Amino acid sequence: LNLILFEAAELAADGLLRLVDARAAHIVKVLRVVEGDTVRIGLIDGPRGVATVRRASSSGPKSEFDVELDCVLEPMTPAPPRVDLLLAVPRPKVLRRLWAQFAALGVSRVILTNAERVERPYFDTHFLDERVYRPLLIEGLQQAKDTRVPRVSIHRRFKPLIEDELAGSSDAATRIVADPAGTRSVGTVVRERAACAANDRVLVAIGPEGGWNEFELDLLEAHGFQKAGMGVRTLRTDTACVAILALIHDALRSGD
Amino acid sequence: LNLILFEAAELAADGLLRLVDARAAHIVKVLRVVEGDTVRIGLIDGPRGVATVRRASSSGPKSEFDVELDCVLEPMTPAPPRVDLLLAVPRPKVLRRLWAQFAALGVSRVILTNAERVERPYFDTHFLDERVYRPLLIEGLQQAKDTRVPRVSIHRRFKPLIEDELAGSSDAATRIVADPAGTRSVGTVVRERAACAANDRVLVAIGPEGGWNEFELDLLEAHGFQKAGMGVRTLRTDTACVAILALIHDALRSGD
Repeated sequence: LNLILFEAAELAADGLLRLVDARAAHIVKVLRVVEGDTVRIGLIDGPRGVATVRRASSSGPKSEFDVELDCVLEPMTPAPPRVDLLLAVPRPKVLRRLWAQFAALGVSRVILTNAERVERPYFDTHFLDERVYRPLLIEGLQQAKDTRVPRVSIHRRFKPLIEDELAGSSDAATRIVADPAGTRSVGTVVRERAACAANDRVLVAIGPEGGWNEFELDLLEAHGFQKAGMGVRTLRTDTACVAILALIHDALRSGD
Repeated sequence: LNLILFEAAELAADGLLRLVDARAAHIVKVLRVVEGDTVRIGLIDGPRGVATVRRASSSGPKSEFDVELDCVLEPMTPAPPRVDLLLAVPRPKVLRRLWAQFAALGVSRVILTNAERVERPYFDTHFLDERVYRPLLIEGLQQAKDTRVPRVSIHRRFKPLIEDELAGSSDAATRIVADPAGTRSVGTVVRERAACAANDRVLVAIGPEGGWNEFELDLLEAHGFQKAGMGVRTLRTDTACVAILALIHDALRSGD
């Protein structure tokens, strides 16, 4: 953990944060703090900060950890990442692996959708249950030292999502769809747009393992999604997601 | 499988390829071919091609698959990927996940090394055994439609590797090391170099989970590795590997 995250309700009025769970174990066993040491902390969806260890102990036969931290938060909350993701629901195993990586790479919104080539049982997985994916998102944030939890929505119907609901879900001015037939690279498309609009945000659509069908691709294009390619190699959904998010963030940074 | 790969020894002199294993099952069950259909094939470390189905059957109580293909190979073998990877041995679980992704993203050489922050038991994993990782590499090649199996070497001593052996392992003219302190982006460094040298190849060094130590970083820099950053977010090794390989390939493509 590069940043210890906590919920607002965990913080006492005097800035004291008491931890007795896996975070306390990490602070004692991995960071090996002593009284007076400092650790980096963050309020979920709020500012980062620094905490001074008031007390850290492990005791009992089951090694129970107990840590008290005096927290000082920065005045500003980090800005949300400038990328939103529209993703056809992948296989549960792949989805499981992706949650922490989305949060680590930086995604403001994860908009999960049905598509022709999404298999129906994919919607039944518990990895679409917030109680399951939220801890995975927070794990990714703690890795990347961010506090902003991606907002997630799940849509079982593609057409109404694209035609009616998408504008309410993402305010990104640049929309791109990853497509093997896209002759222009992801970076080129994003840099062109970012050059004319500082603080532009990007919404990227990534299809199912077999790709979007023709109807879906046409509908996306009709709603402003520009095709962008990533070379001739066909990538698995999880590899493609990480690759494309890295390319977009890199292009947004270089456009600033 | 986007490409069915086979070894040279499997191909008969008349171009007939007989498959009875998982590849045959894939051709019958997933591709659902009938006689006369064509499938994309590739000779491992050789050319790609097209095969016509002469016979495809499944039989017996255990569903044994038996497929005969008439293969026609292209004249040219694809060029090896223009990226080599120097990687501090990661945790076995992470290494397991990475093999197929290396092959899919495109890496010519995987040079695995020790480093101070590599834990000793990491070298004992069977995921460093060629019999275990080669099928994973081939899985990645079949996904990405490539035939070139990355060449792998494992080095238990960092200093002699960097000082003496590296030149024999990678002929890449551009060397970069991923480092959070790198102020220039991976793409910028690669594009600058690629602009002056067409067909330039890149060797990228990625450290252990806790980073290279100061000695290691100094030695890499003394041997021509330029620091390059990927923004302020700290990524897990597996996410970082996929991200950086995507950025390098994108920069090499845009430099052509």
